[in-house]
Amino acid sequence: MHGLKHGKILLGYQKLIRSSIGRNILCSRCISTLHSIFPKHENFAIRHNGPSKEQQEQMLKAIGVKDTEDMINQTIPKQIRLGKDLDLEDTVCENEILDRLNLIAKQNRCDWRSFIGMGYYNCSVPRTIVRNMLENPGWSTPYTPYQPELAQGRLESLINYQTMVVDMTEGLDIANASLLDEATAAAEAVSLCFRHNNRRKFYVDEKINPQALEVVRTRAQLIGVEIFVENIERMDFSCRDFSGVLIQYPNTEGRVFDFSHVIEDAHTHGSLVACSTDLLALALLKSPGELGCDVALGSSQRFGVPLNYGGPHAAFFAVRNDLKRLMPGRVVGVTRDAHGKKVYRLALQTREQHIRRAKATSNICTAQALLANMSAMFAVYHGPEGIKHLANRVHNAALLLAHGIHKAGHYLVHSDFFDTIMVHMTSGVHDIYRRSGEKKINLRIYNGCKIGVALDETVVEHDLDDLLYVFGCEQTAAELAAELGGKLEGHLSESPLRRKTDFLTHPIFHKYRSETNIVRYMKKLENKDVSLVHSMIPLGSCTMKLNATAEMEPISWREFANIHPFVPIDQARGYQELFKELERDLCEITGYDSICFQPNSGAQGEFTGLAAIRAYHKSIGENQRSVCLIPTSAHGTNPASAQMCGMKVVPVKVDKSGSVDLLDLQKLAHKYAANLSAIMLTYPSTNGVFEEGIRETCDMIHELGGQVYVDGANMNAQVGLCRPGDYGSDVSHLNLHKTFCIPHGGGGPGMGPIGVKKHLVPFLPTHPVVPPPGSLVSDARPLGVVSAAPWGSACILPISWTYIKLMGAKGLREASEIAILNANYMAKRLEGHYNILYTGTNGFVAHEFIIDVRGFKATSNVEAVDIAKRLQDYGFHAPTMSWPVTNTLMIEPTESEDKEELDRFCDALISIRKEIKDIEDGKVDKEINMLKMAPHTLESVSADNWQQPYTRKQAAFPLPYLKPDDKMWPSTGRIDDIYGDKNLFCTCPPMEAYEEEEE
Amino acid sequence: MHGLKHGKILLGYQKLIRSSIGRNILCSRCISTLHSIFPKHENFAIRHNGPSKEQQEQMLKAIGVKDTEDMINQTIPKQIRLGKDLDLEDTVCENEILDRLNLIAKQNRCDWRSFIGMGYYNCSVPRTIVRNMLENPGWSTPYTPYQPELAQGRLESLINYQTMVVDMTEGLDIANASLLDEATAAAEAVSLCFRHNNRRKFYVDEKINPQALEVVRTRAQLIGVEIFVENIERMDFSCRDFSGVLIQYPNTEGRVFDFSHVIEDAHTHGSLVACSTDLLALALLKSPGELGCDVALGSSQRFGVPLNYGGPHAAFFAVRNDLKRLMPGRVVGVTRDAHGKKVYRLALQTREQHIRRAKATSNICTAQALLANMSAMFAVYHGPEGIKHLANRVHNAALLLAHGIHKAGHYLVHSDFFDTIMVHMTSGVHDIYRRSGEKKINLRIYNGCKIGVALDETVVEHDLDDLLYVFGCEQTAAELAAELGGKLEGHLSESPLRRKTDFLTHPIFHKYRSETNIVRYMKKLENKDVSLVHSMIPLGSCTMKLNATAEMEPISWREFANIHPFVPIDQARGYQELFKELERDLCEITGYDSICFQPNSGAQGEFTGLAAIRAYHKSIGENQRSVCLIPTSAHGTNPASAQMCGMKVVPVKVDKSGSVDLLDLQKLAHKYAANLSAIMLTYPSTNGVFEEGIRETCDMIHELGGQVYVDGANMNAQVGLCRPGDYGSDVSHLNLHKTFCIPHGGGGPGMGPIGVKKHLVPFLPTHPVVPPPGSLVSDARPLGVVSAAPWGSACILPISWTYIKLMGAKGLREASEIAILNANYMAKRLEGHYNILYTGTNGFVAHEFIIDVRGFKATSNVEAVDIAKRLQDYGFHAPTMSWPVTNTLMIEPTESEDKEELDRFCDALISIRKEIKDIEDGKVDKEINMLKMAPHTLESVSADNWQQPYTRKQAAFPLPYLKPDDKMWPSTGRIDDIYGDKNLFCTCPPMEAYEEEEE
Repeated sequence: MHGLKHGKILLGYQKLIRSSIGRNILCSRCISTLHSIFPKHENFAIRHNGPSKEQQEQMLKAIGVKDTEDMINQTIPKQIRLGKDLDLEDTVCENEILDRLNLIAKQNRCDWRSFIGMGYYNCSVPRTIVRNMLENPGWSTPYTPYQPELAQGRLESLINYQTMVVDMTEGLDIANASLLDEATAAAEAVSLCFRHNNRRKFYVDEKINPQALEVVRTRAQLIGVEIFVENIERMDFSCRDFSGVLIQYPNTEGRVFDFSHVIEDAHTHGSLVACSTDLLALALLKSPGELGCDVALGSSQRFGVPLNYGGPHAAFFAVRNDLKRLMPGRVVGVTRDAHGKKVYRLALQTREQHIRRAKATSNICTAQALLANMSAMFAVYHGPEGIKHLANRVHNAALLLAHGIHKAGHYLVHSDFFDTIMVHMTSGVHDIYRRSGEKKINLRIYNGCKIGVALDETVVEHDLDDLLYVFGCEQTAAELAAELGGKLEGHLSESPLRRKTDFLTHPIFHKYRSETNIVRYMKKLENKDVSLVHSMIPLGSCTMKLNATAEMEPISWREFANIHPFVPIDQARGYQELFKELERDLCEITGYDSICFQPNSGAQGEFTGLAAIRAYHKSIGENQRSVCLIPTSAHGTNPASAQMCGMKVVPVKVDKSGSVDLLDLQKLAHKYAANLSAIMLTYPSTNGVFEEGIRETCDMIHELGGQVYVDGANMNAQVGLCRPGDYGSDVSHLNLHKTFCIPHGGGGPGMGPIGVKKHLVPFLPTHPVVPPPGSLVSDARPLGVVSAAPWGSACILPISWTYIKLMGAKGLREASEIAILNANYMAKRLEGHYNILYTGTNGFVAHEFIIDVRGFKATSNVEAVDIAKRLQDYGFHAPTMSWPVTNTLMIEPTESEDKEELDRFCDALISIRKEIKDIEDGKVDKEINMLKMAPHTLESVSADNWQQPYTRKQAAFPLPYLKPDDKMWPSTGRIDDIYGDKNLFCTCPPMEAYEEEEE
Repeated sequence: MHGLKHGKILLGYQKLIRSSIGRNILCSRCISTLHSIFPKHENFAIRHNGPSKEQQEQMLKAIGVKDTEDMINQTIPKQIRLGKDLDLEDTVCENEILDRLNLIAKQNRCDWRSFIGMGYYNCSVPRTIVRNMLENPGWSTPYTPYQPELAQGRLESLINYQTMVVDMTEGLDIANASLLDEATAAAEAVSLCFRHNNRRKFYVDEKINPQALEVVRTRAQLIGVEIFVENIERMDFSCRDFSGVLIQYPNTEGRVFDFSHVIEDAHTHGSLVACSTDLLALALLKSPGELGCDVALGSSQRFGVPLNYGGPHAAFFAVRNDLKRLMPGRVVGVTRDAHGKKVYRLALQTREQHIRRAKATSNICTAQALLANMSAMFAVYHGPEGIKHLANRVHNAALLLAHGIHKAGHYLVHSDFFDTIMVHMTSGVHDIYRRSGEKKINLRIYNGCKIGVALDETVVEHDLDDLLYVFGCEQTAAELAAELGGKLEGHLSESPLRRKTDFLTHPIFHKYRSETNIVRYMKKLENKDVSLVHSMIPLGSCTMKLNATAEMEPISWREFANIHPFVPIDQARGYQELFKELERDLCEITGYDSICFQPNSGAQGEFTGLAAIRAYHKSIGENQRSVCLIPTSAHGTNPASAQMCGMKVVPVKVDKSGSVDLLDLQKLAHKYAANLSAIMLTYPSTNGVFEEGIRETCDMIHELGGQVYVDGANMNAQVGLCRPGDYGSDVSHLNLHKTFCIPHGGGGPGMGPIGVKKHLVPFLPTHPVVPPPGSLVSDARPLGVVSAAPWGSACILPISWTYIKLMGAKGLREASEIAILNANYMAKRLEGHYNILYTGTNGFVAHEFIIDVRGFKATSNVEAVDIAKRLQDYGFHAPTMSWPVTNTLMIEPTESEDKEELDRFCDALISIRKEIKDIEDGKVDKEINMLKMAPHTLESVSADNWQQPYTRKQAAFPLPYLKPDDKMWPSTGRIDDIYGDKNLFCTCPPMEAYEEEEE
């Protein structure tokens, strides 16, 4: 037996289940001999990366390089190359890694029941929604619906969501298509009020959920709004200096109360009223809208989404009509298409960061589309009678439980409640805690003698019996019910606050009660949308790559899905281990020293990173540093996030080659040196180039006392090749939903953890309920709290964890190399036909590139949008349009697409170029042509009447790869944005609209 | 506290997790008061049953009855009505029942590793295949592809399967699209040989898997073929009285050997040679075809299907070209459509039971399409290089392990092997058993000192190390490898038996290596096929109803999927509990005394039931009883099964009203009284009628000493309303894939357990490896063994278990009532337009009915097939065609379809009737019309050239509910069956065939 210790093999799975007979001390020579005859079961990288070895060779040849190394050398500046393999675990095949993850997951104690509440409730998610939406790549892999002709399915579902929110909050006029979580939605409400009236004071009800309060505080402080936490009875608006007030209803202690007098008072003095609320409670309660609120918000988690240890879930947000242009987030609206048909599209986009940049209403970009869709489908599935049933049932259960607790001698702090009770224990406190442990029940603990119990729709009789037992009540629920003769006192139906208005009256909430029907409805919607199961979605900067099933499976395991975010940390050991491993791997990949998982979107990560910089500067006495340099080519979220941190955004020019104008940068950096807080760079640049001077730029900023923020959006070109932490960045967010395989979900969930260098670690966020271990160390000076849940959207982290474990160091590097190879191959194929806007020093692009179509306007009246729409006829989703350069297309193929698919896409673009040429040559009319009339629907192509000057075949099947039996059709003609803007309508249209069409 | 015991609530979940504080003794009044204020979370029946209460009212009114009870009274003979509620557990909602099932599942010990082999191997099933095929209703819910225009997706996949089998078994010409399992495939081989040369002796190699041997024995005995189990070296064919020989290669002990001399000898004397083999081993071994075998068969489980505690898996079967018309099972072939396009369809149907009845090659009807598709996709995913990699890897592992075991002093019984080793332990036997327990390792135990170890593709290093430890080898795998210098002796690549031929050379096995590509391929195929996610599939007698996600989820839980069928029974306690509960429930539903789960298809159930009757008669000295009366309207499987039991089939006439001709029956029964074995009845009849005289018929048969077999195909009209066990049946099979929600899988898996009355219990099947507990009682005289696995396709039983638990007594009865209501409503709507062929005494049909279209041939040249194909243009799969009456259509809507869908289907049929009228009236040509040209593809409707005398709209969108943006299109024009028959081609066509089309 050799005495050498073999390090790597001891990691992970091996360590967990390895035999205990001391055989794990092996020499590396033995191992490698063994591997020569007994190789790995499978190399997952060949599943993740699209092109075969032969295809890679062909592409390398086509772009004129010797080999991959040659290509990378010519693309990435030598001085920043990593120069070694990442130190990651050896890979195993997908079933093995899932076995290992299963062992980790089992350390999460989903055998405990949580009645903690605080915005998170157990939910009996209909299994058909789990399988046919959440677990269905047709729903999880589409992009944000910016191309509505290929996205009518999820747009319809999102408008169902908006309708549901508007209905439940009754009295408000317009809702958005989701925000990140309840707490950030609350912070957005504060911003909205501030933007509305520019007053710098804001009241917050002292009885709102603590995590929401802390997020509000953190965010408000940075924009210079002062938060006053107050009892609602003691709020005074008379000085007219309060921007608004945020009230929670029912409040965090479960109390239901009438606050219309506060609303009246606020309104009298020009303050707005925002209400954080609970959709299920609103089935029985007078709505915030009816009470007079201006804004309603909250989490729609309990409508059809699992607890997920805190996320992802969708938050909702509804406002009065006159506030709509101040509303954050995406809004789906109704408009018409070229044929006059009623269709859906994203409305009010001029508010958004990708257009308004620093002046945007919010930095929100990725929302929670998939979760909003699950919630909407939950409402469609249950309908109003089902929702009322669930609400009454849980309310009755709470009343019965309260009766028993009262009989057991305890004091109920509030007599009016929906499903959450606050108990002042009068005796036997120790026994109550002991019995709750015995029954594996988590309660909310306010302090030693005050306890909260929040019920939910999953509560069954034995839960009630166990809770009664815990509180020392000697009767069962059935006995109590019999004793009361079935009559419950204090029912909300007797209250003046009872709901009198109907909700979910639209037929869509009445047609799909049977599973057969709802499955068909979900399938019908799914089949209208282009997703990665159909064809490549070559969205520059969005990295639409493979989301493997092996990565996706764990998120619906009960051990990950059914854990309340505020359980004692020892009930979530599995999660904690996963976080630790993922942090270690991400640090290795990025060169950072620590990762914070709290930010639950990329934009949120930007905000957190900048806030950390601000906190750092403050800690060293340089609070004046508030200037943020941002190249004009940056993502719109960059300036929007900087603005949210109270920074002054100074734009830096981009030179002709697409790189940051170093002279301008130097000038500005020195000009603002004393107040320079940070520069936000994207690397490789948003123009698709690895800029040579990145390290020098970082050095210069540091010399001037500034910090460097590298936007992680383009990490997919870097993993295994270079690391932001090495070349000078202090902090980055990582879009786990781009580079690390979390699917886009049709517009979210995303996940935007940040990586930071050591000096920023003390400033990472904390959490008021479950502080992450790192925020508890002695030198911690947390910047505050940025998300409702301590680890953001924890439940989707297994996706990235699994991806990294499956790929390993070699696979990840290969992925980056192939992403770059694919982009360069496409650029090469297209260069004779289109102008490739920017390339690096040696003529190579990074993992994405821009084709310039600006010239066609003059020669043929063709614009980028025409090409984008025409691509739909070729079966493709358009690339990123008009960003970062107006009237161009930015293409990012990713490593997951093989050469055949790249060729099909190039063929399509080349064919379109010929179509443009025909216009240029005067062969075809400038208005009536295949580009201007695109996209062509199945309806028009199969109609009896065809009056175009070109043929049906030219319209719909212009290339041989397009086959009638598997072509993906746009389901509407070209969308009429102007009509939609003029006739804003953001809930389900009346049924007549559908019927008219039929005729 | 009341002293009354509340019974029901103690069952199941309540019992398992109920608190231990003695609160479960409650009075029923308390419970009901509680339920009045705290009702059930959800009534699953409203999800399963399609029509809402309002729709039910409308339909009852339309058919002219007062209420449901009135309808049932007029439909089902009063004397057989159940007259009480079924005694089943109270229902809970889907998430609760899954929680409970999860607790049951956890009693299956999937933490043990099984190296048992014997035809079952662990498999690393690619997760993307699990999610996108097995768990995808688009793949699991289609029907058998009898309508090829709507089934090209799975037909392509099945032809991939056939190609894979033909490739791996190299030298054989044609393979079928799957059989039920290896053991029944072996029995089918015996039948084939017998049919080929009519000799009544058959050799079986003594070293075949014991379960296959016993199934062969059971089946052979019933058709009068004598089995001789013999060492292959001692077989003597010279008397030319042996029909054939069955050899296993590699054999059950793992031995690889050359048996070409046996083949030569057999062939010389006119005997056929069948070989049971292993697809993975054939990647390295000379194939059965190359050795000269006439038949190759085996399980394709280890290609991409989990162990599933024995099933379902697909068995493969390949033969020489000249035997193809004797081959059992479905075969997919290539043909062309009306436009000359290459397409797929089921070929050689004239061999099958639904056409040939008692003369069929086999009774097989439901096969294992879904599992065959998984196996085919596994081959597509891995390709030849991947399969070779897996084969070499496991072979090397076995060689290494054998080396270690040999070094530890044990004797290897065979020196030539692939992945399975037989060890004669020379010492330390007790320690070896102890250490295998310590390591949680299951091995195959031959006897006290002989042990088998079968490796598989999932084996990893620590498995080898643990196995070496178990056998007392002091070295690790890595150390052994180093010691050998990476050189393994005895590798098959050095053997004369090594494989020299290529396999999986077709491009289809080379194009889809990346997950992105294979997902798109699976999606492309899925989208060509109509399934229940699109529209109703109203197949008479096939009960295509909802297969709810909650029912489907458990089958992919690792605790159900990853258990070897031959583990010690205490490692499968979860399964055993599930069987017990399901048996109890099914007994209650049917009125039988016991259920046997071994038959893994309906036809298999028929065979088993009849065999039990034969065994019973034999036991009472009446072995002469061999006449089976079968109405001419019976399913073709009935006579085919009777024939397989060596029975003489005597057809009974059907009278004009569609009922069994009682006079004829009486006459025949008495004529054959002395030899009367059984009558096989279907109830309600295959003509869709509850015949009045059922009880009298049963009584008469019993009086004559016969037994009554009631075919369970139509249980869906009876559950909760009447029970075969009550009205006189002795035995029935239950198609769990019809009435009890196992999806059809595009042609399987099915599951056909039988229910029997007490006197037949002793004759139920046993199993040679794991005898079911019932077959071990003292009075057991088992009929033999009918399937490879002790409990058939155990892994899909959770589907039916969950269905029953979710529905409960009330829900199940409602389902039957609505199934009958839906059928009667449709019959009512159609009766003015079509002739409804048969109704009961009061003019009502059961759960299905026949429309007679025979007259149209004369008036308009329209046949049933034209209506069936035209229905595709209306978005519907055709009803059952020409069965039980030629040129009619039998419609079964099931309870899961709502009134709107029924109306759409009726509208379609009524509209088609108008189209026929136009032909009748001479307005439209008899040859060139929408029916004869149907179905119309998207290709033809969107073509530039349209030359039909009707419009595109009339062709493709004849009714307003048909919308271009969600219409399901047939992907081919009408299939040309005659061309296919003339040009039989049953493997993937060459790529040129595809390319030609493109041009």
